[in-house]
Amino acid sequence: MRNRRGAVELELRNHLTDLRLIGLGVVRVDGKEVPLEQVVLMSDEGPVWRGERLSRECPVAFEQRRTLCLRAEIPPLGEGEHRVEVELECGLHGPVSLHVTEAIEEGHPEPDSRIPRSPEDDYTEDIVRCRRDYAEAWTGARLEHVASHSFDAGHARNSCEHFTGVAQVPLGIAGPLTILGENAHGAYLIPLATTEGAMVASYNRGIKVLNEAGGAVCTVLDDAMQRSPVFVFESAKAGREFTTWVRTNQAAIAEQAESTSRVATLQDIEAYQVSRMVFLRFNFTTGDAAGQNMVGKAVFAALLWIREQYPAIRASFLDGNISTDKKSSQLNILRTRGKRVVAEVVIGKELLLSRMRTHVRQLVQVQRITTEGSNLAGSHNNGSQSANALAALFIATGQDVGALAESAAGRLYMEETSDGDLYASITLPALVLATHGGGTGLPTQRECLEMMDCYGRGKVRRLAEIVAGVVLAGELSLACALSSTLGSEEWVASHEHLGRNR
Amino acid sequence: MRNRRGAVELELRNHLTDLRLIGLGVVRVDGKEVPLEQVVLMSDEGPVWRGERLSRECPVAFEQRRTLCLRAEIPPLGEGEHRVEVELECGLHGPVSLHVTEAIEEGHPEPDSRIPRSPEDDYTEDIVRCRRDYAEAWTGARLEHVASHSFDAGHARNSCEHFTGVAQVPLGIAGPLTILGENAHGAYLIPLATTEGAMVASYNRGIKVLNEAGGAVCTVLDDAMQRSPVFVFESAKAGREFTTWVRTNQAAIAEQAESTSRVATLQDIEAYQVSRMVFLRFNFTTGDAAGQNMVGKAVFAALLWIREQYPAIRASFLDGNISTDKKSSQLNILRTRGKRVVAEVVIGKELLLSRMRTHVRQLVQVQRITTEGSNLAGSHNNGSQSANALAALFIATGQDVGALAESAAGRLYMEETSDGDLYASITLPALVLATHGGGTGLPTQRECLEMMDCYGRGKVRRLAEIVAGVVLAGELSLACALSSTLGSEEWVASHEHLGRNR
Amino acid sequence: MRNRRGAVELELRNHLTDLRLIGLGVVRVDGKEVPLEQVVLMSDEGPVWRGERLSRECPVAFEQRRTLCLRAEIPPLGEGEHRVEVELECGLHGPVSLHVTEAIEEGHPEPDSRIPRSPEDDYTEDIVRCRRDYAEAWTGARLEHVASHSFDAGHARNSCEHFTGVAQVPLGIAGPLTILGENAHGAYLIPLATTEGAMVASYNRGIKVLNEAGGAVCTVLDDAMQRSPVFVFESAKAGREFTTWVRTNQAAIAEQAESTSRVATLQDIEAYQVSRMVFLRFNFTTGDAAGQNMVGKAVFAALLWIREQYPAIRASFLDGNISTDKKSSQLNILRTRGKRVVAEVVIGKELLLSRMRTHVRQLVQVQRITTEGSNLAGSHNNGSQSANALAALFIATGQDVGALAESAAGRLYMEETSDGDLYASITLPALVLATHGGGTGLPTQRECLEMMDCYGRGKVRRLAEIVAGVVLAGELSLACALSSTLGSEEWVASHEHLGRNR
Amino acid sequence: MRNRRGAVELELRNHLTDLRLIGLGVVRVDGKEVPLEQVVLMSDEGPVWRGERLSRECPVAFEQRRTLCLRAEIPPLGEGEHRVEVELECGLHGPVSLHVTEAIEEGHPEPDSRIPRSPEDDYTEDIVRCRRDYAEAWTGARLEHVASHSFDAGHARNSCEHFTGVAQVPLGIAGPLTILGENAHGAYLIPLATTEGAMVASYNRGIKVLNEAGGAVCTVLDDAMQRSPVFVFESAKAGREFTTWVRTNQAAIAEQAESTSRVATLQDIEAYQVSRMVFLRFNFTTGDAAGQNMVGKAVFAALLWIREQYPAIRASFLDGNISTDKKSSQLNILRTRGKRVVAEVVIGKELLLSRMRTHVRQLVQVQRITTEGSNLAGSHNNGSQSANALAALFIATGQDVGALAESAAGRLYMEETSDGDLYASITLPALVLATHGGGTGLPTQRECLEMMDCYGRGKVRRLAEIVAGVVLAGELSLACALSSTLGSEEWVASHEHLGRNR
Repeated sequence: MRNRRGAVELELRNHLTDLRLIGLGVVRVDGKEVPLEQVVLMSDEGPVWRGERLSRECPVAFEQRRTLCLRAEIPPLGEGEHRVEVELECGLHGPVSLHVTEAIEEGHPEPDSRIPRSPEDDYTEDIVRCRRDYAEAWTGARLEHVASHSFDAGHARNSCEHFTGVAQVPLGIAGPLTILGENAHGAYLIPLATTEGAMVASYNRGIKVLNEAGGAVCTVLDDAMQRSPVFVFESAKAGREFTTWVRTNQAAIAEQAESTSRVATLQDIEAYQVSRMVFLRFNFTTGDAAGQNMVGKAVFAALLWIREQYPAIRASFLDGNISTDKKSSQLNILRTRGKRVVAEVVIGKELLLSRMRTHVRQLVQVQRITTEGSNLAGSHNNGSQSANALAALFIATGQDVGALAESAAGRLYMEETSDGDLYASITLPALVLATHGGGTGLPTQRECLEMMDCYGRGKVRRLAEIVAGVVLAGELSLACALSSTLGSEEWVASHEHLGRNR
Repeated sequence: MRNRRGAVELELRNHLTDLRLIGLGVVRVDGKEVPLEQVVLMSDEGPVWRGERLSRECPVAFEQRRTLCLRAEIPPLGEGEHRVEVELECGLHGPVSLHVTEAIEEGHPEPDSRIPRSPEDDYTEDIVRCRRDYAEAWTGARLEHVASHSFDAGHARNSCEHFTGVAQVPLGIAGPLTILGENAHGAYLIPLATTEGAMVASYNRGIKVLNEAGGAVCTVLDDAMQRSPVFVFESAKAGREFTTWVRTNQAAIAEQAESTSRVATLQDIEAYQVSRMVFLRFNFTTGDAAGQNMVGKAVFAALLWIREQYPAIRASFLDGNISTDKKSSQLNILRTRGKRVVAEVVIGKELLLSRMRTHVRQLVQVQRITTEGSNLAGSHNNGSQSANALAALFIATGQDVGALAESAAGRLYMEETSDGDLYASITLPALVLATHGGGTGLPTQRECLEMMDCYGRGKVRRLAEIVAGVVLAGELSLACALSSTLGSEEWVASHEHLGRNR
Repeated sequence: MRNRRGAVELELRNHLTDLRLIGLGVVRVDGKEVPLEQVVLMSDEGPVWRGERLSRECPVAFEQRRTLCLRAEIPPLGEGEHRVEVELECGLHGPVSLHVTEAIEEGHPEPDSRIPRSPEDDYTEDIVRCRRDYAEAWTGARLEHVASHSFDAGHARNSCEHFTGVAQVPLGIAGPLTILGENAHGAYLIPLATTEGAMVASYNRGIKVLNEAGGAVCTVLDDAMQRSPVFVFESAKAGREFTTWVRTNQAAIAEQAESTSRVATLQDIEAYQVSRMVFLRFNFTTGDAAGQNMVGKAVFAALLWIREQYPAIRASFLDGNISTDKKSSQLNILRTRGKRVVAEVVIGKELLLSRMRTHVRQLVQVQRITTEGSNLAGSHNNGSQSANALAALFIATGQDVGALAESAAGRLYMEETSDGDLYASITLPALVLATHGGGTGLPTQRECLEMMDCYGRGKVRRLAEIVAGVVLAGELSLACALSSTLGSEEWVASHEHLGRNR
Repeated sequence: MRNRRGAVELELRNHLTDLRLIGLGVVRVDGKEVPLEQVVLMSDEGPVWRGERLSRECPVAFEQRRTLCLRAEIPPLGEGEHRVEVELECGLHGPVSLHVTEAIEEGHPEPDSRIPRSPEDDYTEDIVRCRRDYAEAWTGARLEHVASHSFDAGHARNSCEHFTGVAQVPLGIAGPLTILGENAHGAYLIPLATTEGAMVASYNRGIKVLNEAGGAVCTVLDDAMQRSPVFVFESAKAGREFTTWVRTNQAAIAEQAESTSRVATLQDIEAYQVSRMVFLRFNFTTGDAAGQNMVGKAVFAALLWIREQYPAIRASFLDGNISTDKKSSQLNILRTRGKRVVAEVVIGKELLLSRMRTHVRQLVQVQRITTEGSNLAGSHNNGSQSANALAALFIATGQDVGALAESAAGRLYMEETSDGDLYASITLPALVLATHGGGTGLPTQRECLEMMDCYGRGKVRRLAEIVAGVVLAGELSLACALSSTLGSEEWVASHEHLGRNR
C-alpha cells in the first residue's frame, strides 16, 4: 500500500479463481467509506476503470494470480498499518469481500507510465476515451472540454501521439488586410488564435493604417530549410580536406539527399569549422511543407553516403546544432531559415498624424532609441511584438508552434522619406511555414488557411507574405502607441480595457 | 462593379421604397446564372447574408436610399461593360427585378475592414455567428470546425477580440513524469497540445528514463517580470545624474509602481546607459500571473510620477526594448525573465546504456560538440528542442504563446560524474508562465492545468518545475538519439513512422 | 592675451620693420620674471622656438606686420589687465623692449591645431624635431625617450603621419616553440612586446608543455579579407533582384575589383538583405599583406562599375559595417576574416600531471565550465587570454594593432581522448596578419619577423601558424593554473612576483 | 649531430683538459668551409657566442668533461655520416683540431628552451645582451634596432620577462583636441603610436570639426574592474542558497577582498546561475590602475574565505570567464568593465557641410544603415574604427594592449536635433585604462601620458575622457567620409596617398 499524489494505492492479488468483476460494492479505508467515484481500478496493461462505471455490460476480467491496483482518491495515510475493506461484485460468484491490513510502504515514489495505448489503432474513439478516463482517474481532473473535439481522432494520426482530446484556443479575426505581394494580392481576413486580450485589437489598428496607406508590400527574399550534420576528424587539417571534398562532391551529395523526396531540393551546403569539427549546413527548398523532417531524411541519406565515401571521418552526428531548429540564433538572421520575407509600407505624414497621432520624425526617433535598447539587450528582434502575431497565426493555421523560437526573429526598420513620409519595414529572416503537411490539414487549421486561400500546394509564399504584412501591422500599432504623445497612456489603457483584469 | 479576390461586387442602391428582403431569386451575370450559395449580400454596418439563407423568418431590411453590396463568388470579369440581373423577393412588394449594366472599375483594391462588432456585448452567440458568416462570405471558406467550441463565447472576453470560434489543437498526454521539486512532488501527467508528429513519443521516451533515474530534480532559481522605460536627456552627464537619482529614490518609485496592483512587487531596477539615454529595467514579482500587463501598468504609474519629479527628462517612453518582451535576448539569459528554473538528473551509466543505448562519455561528448555548433550559430539555446515542449505546454495550459520567443532560451549542461554516471541539467532562464489570469481560465486550458494540479493561485512555481522537467526529458530523448550508435537512424525513423508522411 | 592649459599666451605684432630675432632677454609678467626655458615663441606656420634656444646661429625671422605668439608657461592669470615686458634681441637692430598691458580674453578655449608640418617632406629630421619642440612647448612634457628612435624617420613615411618619435615597448622572448605546421616546421623563438608583467613567463610555461608534447600542430583553414558595401533600393524586391544580378555577374565584378592590384583575388561575394538594403561582403585573398586597404580599393572600383551598370541603386556606401573591420563580431567567427587558423596538441596525462599539476578530466571540466561562463557573458572568446599573445606579437611584428579587435576572437576546445590524454585546440577565426607591407618593414618589427623567418612575401601563413601555436601555449598555461589544485594560488602569486607591484 | 631549423648542430665534448677558447679557426663540414659568422657556440647554461666574436679579451671557458654545442648555419645534411673539422684556438694550449665523423640523428625535433636567464638580476645589461646574442644565434636575425632602447633595462622589470630590447612604434601627434569634461578641460595634444598609414590624418580631420563645434563633451559614467570566480554545487538548489548567502554576507566578503590592497574597493557582486554553477562577478574600483591583478588578488582572498565559510562548495575556480578579461562580450556592453565613458558633440549643419561636405540627414541615415549592418554581423561596435584610436593610444601610453579586446566595444549614436544640427556620441562601455602602474611608468609611455597631463594618481578619468574624445573624432571622420557624396573616393584616396603603397 502506497501513498500517491492525491490517492492511496493498494495491490489486490487474485488468489481464488478467474473472476469477472461487474461492480464494486463498498470500499472502506480504516472503516471510513470511500465514495465509488473516487475509486479506480488499474491493471498492468494500462486500462483503468472508475469504480462507478463497472457494470454487467462492461465487466473487467480479473484472472487468477493476476494483480489489480485499487486506487482510492483520499488523503495520504500516516505511517503504520491500515485496514482496507473492498466488496467486489463478481457476476456468477457473487460478491467477494476482501479485508486487508497493510502498512504504508515508502520508496520509489510513483509507478512508471501506463498511459493506455492500442497497438492496432491508437486513434479509435474507444482508446481515446480510455486515455481520457485514465487521465481523469490519475489526475482527478475532469476533461469535459478537452473531450469536445468536433473532428474524428484519426485526423490527429500524424500530428499527435497519445491523442486524448483538444485544446480549444479562441480565434479572433482581424482585417481584411491589403497585401501587395507577388503571391498574395488583395485583402485578406486574418485568423488569430490567441488568449492574450488586446492583441487582436492592436493588430487591427495597425491593419487600418496599412490599408489606408494602400496595403503592405510583401516580398519573399529567400527560402531554405536546414539540417546540419557535424563531422569529427583526427585533426583540423583533415577537417579542412573534408570541406574541400564536400565542395567538390556537392552534386553527388545532392543526388543522395534528393533521392529521399520528390520535393526537397538541395540549394547549397555551408561549411564551418572549429577545431577538428566540420559543421555542414544543408540548405533545401521544401515546397509547401515546412520541411524539417523531409530535410532530416535527406541529410541522413547524404550522411550515410558520405560516411561510406570518406573513411577519415571519426564520428558524425545528424545535427551539430547549427540548423538551428527550434532555436533563435544570429546565424538565422544572416542566413535564412524557412522564408526570409519583408513587408514594407510608406505612410503619408498626414495619415500617420490623423490616424496614429504621431509625427514621422518622432516615430523614427523612438524606433532608433528602442533599437539601441534591443542592441543593449542582445536581442534577436528590435521590434515590439512580432511573436504575438506569429503565435496566433501559427496556432490558427497548424504551423509547428515550436518553430516560433526561430521565426520570432525580426528586424524593424523605419526612416523618414525625402517627402517627410514614413517608410517602415519588417524583415523576418527565419519564418518557418507550411501550407501542406503537418498540422495544416487539421480541420480548424485547414479552415483558417482556407480563409486566406492558403491551404495546400503552391500557397506557402502567399502565406509568408500575409504573415509578414500582419507582423508589420502589429509593429506599427505598438510603435505608434509608444511614440504618440499620449501613447503610453493609450497602450496601458487598451490592455486595461481589453485584456486581463486582475 | 469591382473585381475582388474570388468574387465580383456590385453596389445596389434602393431608389424605390423601404423593402424587406426575404429571398433572392435568380442572379445572372452576363446571362449566366450564379448559384445562390455563391451570392452574398453585405451592408455598410457589416452584417452579411449568404443568398441561400435569406428567408421569411430572417428577412433583411433594405431601406430606401440605402446601398447593399452584392457579392458573387465568380471569376474576375474582363474590362468593359457587364450585365447583371438580380431578382429580389421582397415580401409584401413581391419580387423586384434589377437589371444593371456596369463597367468593371479599377482602383483601390479592397474596402476597409468591416468585421461585424456589437458595441454592447461582442461575445453573444449572435454576433459571433454573424462574424463567422461574414468571414465565410468574405473568404469563401467554411468555418464548420472553427465554430465547434464547447464553451460559451463569454469565456473569451478577456482573451480575444473579434471572437469567431476556436482553433482545436490535438492534445496528447505524456508521462506520468516524476518531479522532485520544492513545489511539485510526485508523478504528473503532461498535457501536450501539438500538431507535430513524433513529438509526444519523443518526450515520453525521455520521461521514462527520467523516471527510472528517480525523477527530475527541479528548482526555481529566480522570478522577475519586466517593463523597461527609456529616458532621454540633454547630455550623457544628465543621464548619469538621473541614474543616481533613481537609485536614491527607489523606495518612492516602488511605492508608485506597487500602488497599481495588490500583487506586483518591485524587486529592483537595473539601469543601463548608452549615449544620453538611460534604460531602466524594472523587475517585479507578479504572483501567479505572467504579469506583463500588470507590470506595464505599474511602470506607467512610476513613469508618470518620475516625470513629475524630474523635469530634466527630455523624453521618455514606456518601453525601450530591454524588457525584452516577446523577444529572445542575451539579457534574459543573464537576468531572469519570468521564472529561471533548472531541472537536473543523475542517470546511472547502466540505465543509460540499457534504456537509451548510449554511453555516458559519448553523450557528454556529443553535447560538447553541439554546444560548439550552438556557439558558432550564436544561438540562445544549446539544446535540441526545448521549444517543442514549451509550445505544446503553453497551448495546452493557456499561456501567452507569444512569450515562447523569450521562454525558448535554454542552456543544456551535461557531465560525467566521478562515478561515471551522467549528470544532465537544463536551465530555462526566461520562462514566462501563469496559473492565474489570461488564458489559464479558458475551459480546455483550465482542465489541462488541473491535470497537473496547477490551476489558480499559489501554483505557478509548481508549473515551472513541471515544465522544466518535461523540457529535460525531451533534451535527453533527442540527445541520446543523436548520440547512440544507431541514433540517427532511429531519429529519422521515428519521424518517418509517427510524423508527417510526405 | 589668453590663459591656456599650463600657460599664458600673448600675441606680438611687429609694427616696426623686418627683424631677425637672435635671442630673448628678460620676460616679465606683472613684474615677475619668467625663466626663459618657460617661454616659447610660436608662429602661424607652426614652427616654434623655446626662448633659450634662440641664438645667432638659429635666428627667427620676424617680419613687419607679422605676428608671433609668445607663450609663457606660468599659472593662469586672473581677470583684468596684466603687464607683460619682453626684451627681444634683434641682431642688427639690437634689443627691442616691448611693454604691453592687456586684459585676459575669455572665449573659445584653445586655438585650432597648428602641429608643424612640412609640405615638401614631412619626415626630415628638422620637421620631426620641430614637431617635438612644438609638442613639448604646448604640453610642457619632455620627449626625451620618444625622440630616441634608432632609425631614420623616413621609415615611418607610410605608417604614421605627424611622425614625432617612437613609443618603445619592452620586448621579451619566449620559446623556442616547436610548431608542426604546413608552413612553419621547427622551433621558433617568439618576440613579445608587452608591458604586462607575468605575461611572457606565462606563455613560456605553456610553451614548455607544448614542446614536451611534441609541439603545436598548426593549420591555416581559410584566408579572406573583406570590404562590404551596402546598396539601398526602392523596395525589398528591387534589392532581391540586385542580389540575383550580383550572383550572375560575379565574374565581371571580380574583373573590376581585381584590376586595382596584382595581388587581391576575389574569392566570393556574400549577400545579406535586410529591408531594402543589400549588404555585400567581398572576400579576397591578399597575399602576404593584411589587405584592408588593398581590398578597399578593389571594392571601390567594383562599386563604381556596379553603379554604372545598375541604375536602380538609390544609394550605396563603401562599407555597410559587415566587413567587420576593427570590430569583434559573430559573423567573423562564422566566416573567416584574415586567417582562420587552428593550433592543436595532444598532451599525455602523465606529462600534464607532472608538468602542469592537473588531471586531464579536471582540466576538461574546468574548460567546460568556463565555456558556460563565456556563453553567459555573450563573449567572442571562451579561452583565457588570446588577446595577450596577439597584442604582444602584433606590436613586435608591425601588425595593425587595431585589428586586434577582430583577431582576439577565439574558440578553445578540449576533450579527453580515448587514451585518457588531453586533446586541446584553439581556433582563431579572424586573425588579421601581414608579413609584407604596413608596419612589417619598420626596423624593429622587421627584426622580430626575421627572428621567426617570417619577413616578406610567402611567409604570412607561417606567421599565422606560429601565432596560433603561441596562443595555444597561453591558453594551456592559464587553464592549467586555473584547474590545478593549487592553481589559483599560483596564478595570483605569479602576478604578485612578476607583475605590477602596487 | 642534428639538423635544426636553418642549421646543423654538433655536440663537442671536452675530453682533454680545461680550455679557454679565444677563437675559432677553420670549421669545415664534409670538407666545405663554413664562414665563421655562420658558426655559433652554445653551452648548457645558455650563453652563446658567435664564432667571429670569440677573442682573447672575451674568451670562453671550456672545462674538461663539459660539452659545447657547435651550430653551423648551413642547409640540412642528408642521412648518413658526415665529417666535421673544427679548429679551436685555445690560448695557452694553442690550436686544437677536432675531426669528428658522425651520423645525422633524427628524433625529437628541437631542444627545449634555453633562453639565457640570470637568477640574481635578469635586467642587467649583460644578461640582456646575452639573450640578444642567443636570439640572434638561434634565429639568424640581427637585432640591431631592437637593441636600441634609450632607457635602462631595469625599467622593464615589472613589465616584461626575458627582456631583450624594444619594439619601436612610430608615434605621431594629433590635435590639439578640445575636451569639455569633468576631469579634462582644455585642448590636448594626442600621441598616437601606430604603423597604419592615414590613421593619424583621419583622426586629425575629425578633431578639427570637433574643435570647431566647441569640443567633445566627455563624461565617465561608471567605473568597475572584475574578477569572476565560479562555484560548483551538488545541485542547482544548493547554488541558489549560496547566492542568497553571498548577498547576505556581502559586507564580510568585501572586507576580505579589500584587505589585499589599499585601493581596490568592492562595489557590488553580480550573481548568475546556470545549472548548479554560480558565477559571481565582483566589481571593484581600482583607483588609477587598470586593476586586473589587484582585483585578482582581492577576489582570491575572498574566495579562500568563502570556501572556509561555506563547506557545501564542491569546486571553485578563480575565474569562470564572465569577468570577461581580454575578451569582447555582450556583458561588458551592459555592465561596465574599466570605464564606461561617453563623448558627445553637437555640430551645426553648416559646419558639417562646409567642413565635412555632408548633410546632417545623410549622415544620420548612413549611420542608421551601418547600424543595421553591425546588427546583422552581430558586432560589438557599430562604429567604424574605435579600435584604431585605442590601439594607438594604448601603445603610446603604456596600457595593457591585450585589453583592447574588451575596450574596442562601442556604440555610436547620431540624430538630427530639432534645429537640424547633428548630435553625435560614442559610448565606450569597457575602456580599460591606467595612469599609474603597469606600463605607464615606462619612459616613452610616461612622456606620452605627460603630454596629456595624465601621468600618475588621480588622472585616470581625465585620460578616459580624452580617449573617448579621440575615438569620437575618428568616428566622425570616417562616417563623414562614407557619407559625403564623394566620400568613398576620398576615403580610398587618403589611404592611397598616405598609407601603404602596394
